[in-house]
Formats: sequence, structure tokens, C-alpha cells
Amino acid sequence: MKGLEILPVGGIPEVRPGDDPSALIARAAGDDLLKTGDVVVVTHKVVSKAEGRLVDLGTVEPSALAKGFAARYDKDPRQIEVVLRESKRIVRMGRGIIISETHHGFVCANAGVDASNVPGDETVCLLPLDPDASARRLRDALRNRLGLDLAVVVSDSFGRPWREGITNVAIGVAGMQPLADYRGDRDPHGYPLTASVLAVADELASAAELVMGKTIGVPVAVVRNYPYEKGPGTGRDLLMEPERDLFR
Amino acid sequence: MKGLEILPVGGIPEVRPGDDPSALIARAAGDDLLKTGDVVVVTHKVVSKAEGRLVDLGTVEPSALAKGFAARYDKDPRQIEVVLRESKRIVRMGRGIIISETHHGFVCANAGVDASNVPGDETVCLLPLDPDASARRLRDALRNRLGLDLAVVVSDSFGRPWREGITNVAIGVAGMQPLADYRGDRDPHGYPLTASVLAVADELASAAELVMGKTIGVPVAVVRNYPYEKGPGTGRDLLMEPERDLFR
Repeated sequence: MKGLEILPVGGIPEVRPGDDPSALIARAAGDDLLKTGDVVVVTHKVVSKAEGRLVDLGTVEPSALAKGFAARYDKDPRQIEVVLRESKRIVRMGRGIIISETHHGFVCANAGVDASNVPGDETVCLLPLDPDASARRLRDALRNRLGLDLAVVVSDSFGRPWREGITNVAIGVAGMQPLADYRGDRDPHGYPLTASVLAVADELASAAELVMGKTIGVPVAVVRNYPYEKGPGTGRDLLMEPERDLFR
Repeated sequence: MKGLEILPVGGIPEVRPGDDPSALIARAAGDDLLKTGDVVVVTHKVVSKAEGRLVDLGTVEPSALAKGFAARYDKDPRQIEVVLRESKRIVRMGRGIIISETHHGFVCANAGVDASNVPGDETVCLLPLDPDASARRLRDALRNRLGLDLAVVVSDSFGRPWREGITNVAIGVAGMQPLADYRGDRDPHGYPLTASVLAVADELASAAELVMGKTIGVPVAVVRNYPYEKGPGTGRDLLMEPERDLFR
């Protein structure tokens, strides 16, 4: 197997509602960066902003629940209210953090609502309404624009129980299967692999984060030479079904 | 920022107790693969086997707890017994899976005890006794052997709540800080980053897994051009302290 390359795509300007992410990415990548078979990993904020998933906190009337939690932890009650609205189930509330299940089914801190890398003090950014649809649209638009067959991963950084730090994961996927299933294969000793379903889309998102940083203005990265399985996989495939989830 | 390269290191033979992992890796990598500043990611089984962390199930007398659980889910009671012995706290038991906290503090399925990629039907492989010590020894031995200053990550694949699939994480670290802390930095709009501690050692382990696969005999990968922060960081730094953990 050849080595992989993880290539940063910088120079993408501040994204505004109505922008076409494929145009911004194609322009920033230049004529010869992208190649058929590449995986394009895009921070969700690029598509969220283009889709207008921004909330002006000046328009938000916080509930009593939001006001109480915000007062206790010195948070903005309007931002807490947005987190509650983006949630369908609260998993934990404590120490100023709300861990909830979003309407998409992601379990993450603050329902993915974030004020960083957003212009203005009074605006927060939401997750895309349907990150798989965002990924599909971007893949189709890049194919139409560049004539290349690419996979697209829309990413966000999530915390996780028991371990410090956040890691990049895939919230939207298009053009590839996000899970690599080795069950039924055998190891070099002939032993059947039983617990070997790898979340490769999450690993691709994590690999891409290594060239993105948080402050250096690189919201897109390209993973080259990864032999992904083509298919109709989605980010939803990475959500554990409630009846299989030991933590529900 | 330059792109990263993720380079597979294949051709490592079956590791036996007493083998020197640095010799096996140096031989497989050849004279000119490794360069100063590379991160060497090693599947824990390479160091576990070299350290003799193998258990012959023929020597294991299962407890009543192990026998009952194994009978209910058609598992080998002796392997369940080994999982219990490697655990200091059981987090969940169900559907044939034991999620526990190991003596190191890792929360994972089956305490990291695994029969795959191990020769013989009656042998299971444990996690290294001290994966950080394993990483340090390998880093020191590679430096002595090759004259190169490298970072070393010892990896395993862990499942996680709420999401399907397993991903590679760092269980032992030497020569680098496993967390990249952006708190106090500001985004391009001047907004302070508050929740931005990235678990980059886990992301490096995940990136490496993309060239390892499960069956293709690539237990080592090299990540080149990643500007890690040098320092005395460890895999233990990635374990969330109980008093900070909302899931305990």
C-alpha cells in the first residue's frame, strides 16, 4: 500500500450565507490540487455558514431553564436557549456543559452550537440541518465543476466520555462507506475477526484535523491515496442505534 | 503548512516474547524511511507480544462470574476471566461485551484482551503493563539505534458510546504532548477559543490506522511533517480525571 497524503486547503475567505462551498474550495485548491479518488474533509462551519445556519442571539428569548443554567455557570442564557432548541434529548447538564442528542442524533457538547470562528459577538453557528445532504451537494457540485469523482466528509470536533480532548469526527458523508467492516475476514493466523468494524470516516476526519488546527484558517483538507469503499454511506451510519447502545 | 504523509511499515514478522521492537521496526523500515521529527505509531500488539503479555488460556481457572457470563453469551469463560482480571472497575456488562476500566485507567471493551492477530487458539494478548513505558523504551531504542529524535505512539482500537465502529487511539505516548491546547488563543475574528483542547495523539493514531488495516500485516505507520509539541506528555494525559468526567 502507498502512503497517504493529508493536504491542507487554506485561503478560503469568510463564508457568507448563500455562498457556494464548491466554488470557494475549487478556487482555494487551485487547478491541480484535487484528483479523482481524493477525500475532501470540510469543517462543518463552511457548509453551515453557506446554508445560513447562523442565529442572531438578539432574536432569542431564553426560557426559564436556559436562564437558570446560564446564571449558575455564568453563560449567555440566549446561547443556552439555542442549545436547548437544537436538542431532542438532554444526556447530561453540569459544569456549564450541556451534553445532548441533537435532532440529527449526534450526542455532543452544546448540540454543536458554537460562537468561535463566527463573525460578530452576537452570532452563533449551528450544525447543518442535514450534514449528509450538505456532503452530497458539495460532492455533486465539485464533480460538476471539476469533473472529478471525490468523497466528501463534513466534520466537527466532538468530546467523548472518559478521554481528554476533542477529536474530529464525520457528521456528513457522501461517496464512500464510512465503516470498514472486517468481520468474517481472518487475521494472518486464520482467527476470525469479530469486533473489527472501523469508523474510517471518523479516522479520515481526525487525520484531516492534523493539518487544520483551530486558528490557522484551514477549514478544508484533502486525503489522498486512501482506498475507501465507494457507496451510498452516510454520516447517519455512524450513529449507534439505541437498541445496540450500552450507554443509553 | 506542508501536507502530512502517512507511511505504512509492513514486513514486520510475528513478534515473540523477548524480541526488541526497535530492531524489528528499524529492519522493516529500512535505512532511509525514518526521519527526525517523525511520529512512529505502533499497534500495541507489537510491544505486548515483545513484553510477553500473552496468556495461555489453558492455565486460567474461571470464576463463577466469568462462567455465568460466558454461558449466557456463548463465550470462552477463561477469556472472560482474563478480562475480569485486567479490570479494576466494570462499567457495563451486556450482550457478551464487558466494558471496563483497566488497571491503567482505560475504559474499553473487554479490557483490551484480544485473541486476534495472536498465534494459537489458546492464547490471548493483553495490553502492555505500562504503555507509556513501552513507548519511552521504543523511542529511546530507536534513537540509540538510528540517531533520530522521534515521537512514539502506542495504539489500540477502542469503541465509544453513541457511535458505531472502533477508532484507533493512543494508549502510550513518548516524545510529544498528546493534547494541543488552543485555549487562550483567538480565532480570526478575535473570539477566544474556550473548548479547544485537541487530542492530537488520538488523531495521529487514527490517521495511522488508515494505512494499517486489520488483516494486511502493517502494525506500524509513520506520520511525517506533523509539527507536534515536544515534551514529556504521556498516554495518561488523555485519561479524563474522575472529578471532571460527566460520565462517571
